[in-house]
Amino acid sequence: MRPLNITVVGATGAVGSLFLKLLGDSTLPLASVNVCASQSSVGKTVQFRGKTLKIQLADELAFRDSDVAFISVDASVSKEIAPLAIAQGAVVLDDSSAFRMNSDVPLVVPEVNAEDLNGIHKIIAIPNCVTVPLVMALHPLHKENPIKRVIVDTYQSVSGSGKKAMDGLISETAAVLEDRLIDPLVYPHRIGFNVIPHVENFLDNGYSHEENKIIHETKKIMHSPEIYISATCVRVPVMIGHCESVHVQFNDPITPDRARELLESFQGIRVVDDLELLQYPTAVMASGSDDVLVGRIRQDISVENGLVLWLAIDNLRKGAATNALQIINCLVEKNLIGKEST
Amino acid sequence: MRPLNITVVGATGAVGSLFLKLLGDSTLPLASVNVCASQSSVGKTVQFRGKTLKIQLADELAFRDSDVAFISVDASVSKEIAPLAIAQGAVVLDDSSAFRMNSDVPLVVPEVNAEDLNGIHKIIAIPNCVTVPLVMALHPLHKENPIKRVIVDTYQSVSGSGKKAMDGLISETAAVLEDRLIDPLVYPHRIGFNVIPHVENFLDNGYSHEENKIIHETKKIMHSPEIYISATCVRVPVMIGHCESVHVQFNDPITPDRARELLESFQGIRVVDDLELLQYPTAVMASGSDDVLVGRIRQDISVENGLVLWLAIDNLRKGAATNALQIINCLVEKNLIGKEST
Repeated sequence: MRPLNITVVGATGAVGSLFLKLLGDSTLPLASVNVCASQSSVGKTVQFRGKTLKIQLADELAFRDSDVAFISVDASVSKEIAPLAIAQGAVVLDDSSAFRMNSDVPLVVPEVNAEDLNGIHKIIAIPNCVTVPLVMALHPLHKENPIKRVIVDTYQSVSGSGKKAMDGLISETAAVLEDRLIDPLVYPHRIGFNVIPHVENFLDNGYSHEENKIIHETKKIMHSPEIYISATCVRVPVMIGHCESVHVQFNDPITPDRARELLESFQGIRVVDDLELLQYPTAVMASGSDDVLVGRIRQDISVENGLVLWLAIDNLRKGAATNALQIINCLVEKNLIGKEST
Repeated sequence: MRPLNITVVGATGAVGSLFLKLLGDSTLPLASVNVCASQSSVGKTVQFRGKTLKIQLADELAFRDSDVAFISVDASVSKEIAPLAIAQGAVVLDDSSAFRMNSDVPLVVPEVNAEDLNGIHKIIAIPNCVTVPLVMALHPLHKENPIKRVIVDTYQSVSGSGKKAMDGLISETAAVLEDRLIDPLVYPHRIGFNVIPHVENFLDNGYSHEENKIIHETKKIMHSPEIYISATCVRVPVMIGHCESVHVQFNDPITPDRARELLESFQGIRVVDDLELLQYPTAVMASGSDDVLVGRIRQDISVENGLVLWLAIDNLRKGAATNALQIINCLVEKNLIGKEST
């Protein structure tokens, strides 16, 4: 392959800066890397493979000769920037919710639906960071034993809302420890030492946009619109690492041992499930790992053919940046980008 | 009625000290209050209605003439102390799991099953602090429309493990903020800025003892062994306030509006459910309140006749001390304690 030209938009954000780090650490041959961010960051610099890169505005120029544009900004901004990248011939990898449910946009977790990467789409969407662990855990089980219904309750870290939210949690926590009163810095209510059942805005049916995403993105990625899914998405005072309690109902009987076998042999999953040694996934354990951690695997005693699972993921890594890099590697392997000119 | 003699065992603990405060603030006529705790606290003092009370050992003497012994200590200790109190003629209100599932021990949340207080039992058990909000929310719905299945995932504060756990969370949090490495102080894993899917020891079927409690206590209190229940119990870095995500399946259709009506008119429940104003229960909101807060009431889109709810409770108050005081008031109203001698 020929070395790639990659443009990163949102390069100073929580996901963008991690993506740059992972890209730098990867063995991917690169011809050039452009870094873009919002007006306030233009002119600042970031380090990449020992070089200093200057932050630019995400205009047409930024995408000239780009093979891939990785965009990690708000959905509304993404909608404006993606067309500029496409116009310059780049494949857009978008981390926002802007395009995920478009019928002509593949929504990809490579271990689950790499076959959806077929070279005919100009935009490829990265799923929401709570969707990724769910489809990773459900897919190997669903292939063997069709899933009928899923209930998922999330425990989401503040880094899902970006760097400012992480700083806000630190400030709020310090204020509580020092017995100072402060207004909520990040969310409508204080998150320091609190739990908030509210991630993204609410819809008319009482679900939040985040809950709606997890439901519809899961069906799309798994190509299984017939699965019934319900979710409650909750913010917890954790820096990095999303956890999920998952209750699954299958068509046919399945034992926890069989589920453990299927999950252990699935690329990208690490089973952490030894109750005698008090080993199970936690948010802190997931932080810094590229795997989806699965544990507390047991029969659901409230229903026929049911299992209960507990998941943890580094929401910035496999929940976003790692998944994006894996998609780029997948596109390269399929010879869909970086083709030698003939 | 004649004024009561009450002995409080565990008077220096998180629940015991709050119970004393609530008892002091109540209008209950009291003849005497004895306070007991473990050997290490004997001789210390606590304040009660303007008087200084000396901590004693919980031996037979401590219960002489007691009408009620409120015991909030570890289950193993409770099993030793309760018989001493009974031998002295006291009615035991026990906050531990020691006696809850005994067939001859009523397990009581007064709003739900006050009828189980009939004067023939020497021990009355206070339910687990995650069971209380669940039965409070389910009971008014179940009376109108029988519940078939419940799935509950909890978000439990550290005060459920007592005062030491609260101090430990503060220390761990400060250490993380100062970038100091420390061993876990409270649980097998760090709880500061973390989420741990582990409350109490694990059973052979993969459920934890806490999950087992919520399942079996709920059926007992509601006199409904036919309800199918599954639970995952999770510790979160919160001081006071347990939250629960609850998915309920009913026999017959039920709308969120009807559920809201039934819950709003149920004593002890406060519906906090205005998504436009971003009002829903949080752990911090519940802390200091004697009500069970219910919100995020919506149709469960994954099943027929399903609802999703979000609960929050002050686990030390209605989850323990408030509930105990309500039981004492109930016993007085029923003339089961404090009877005038004839």
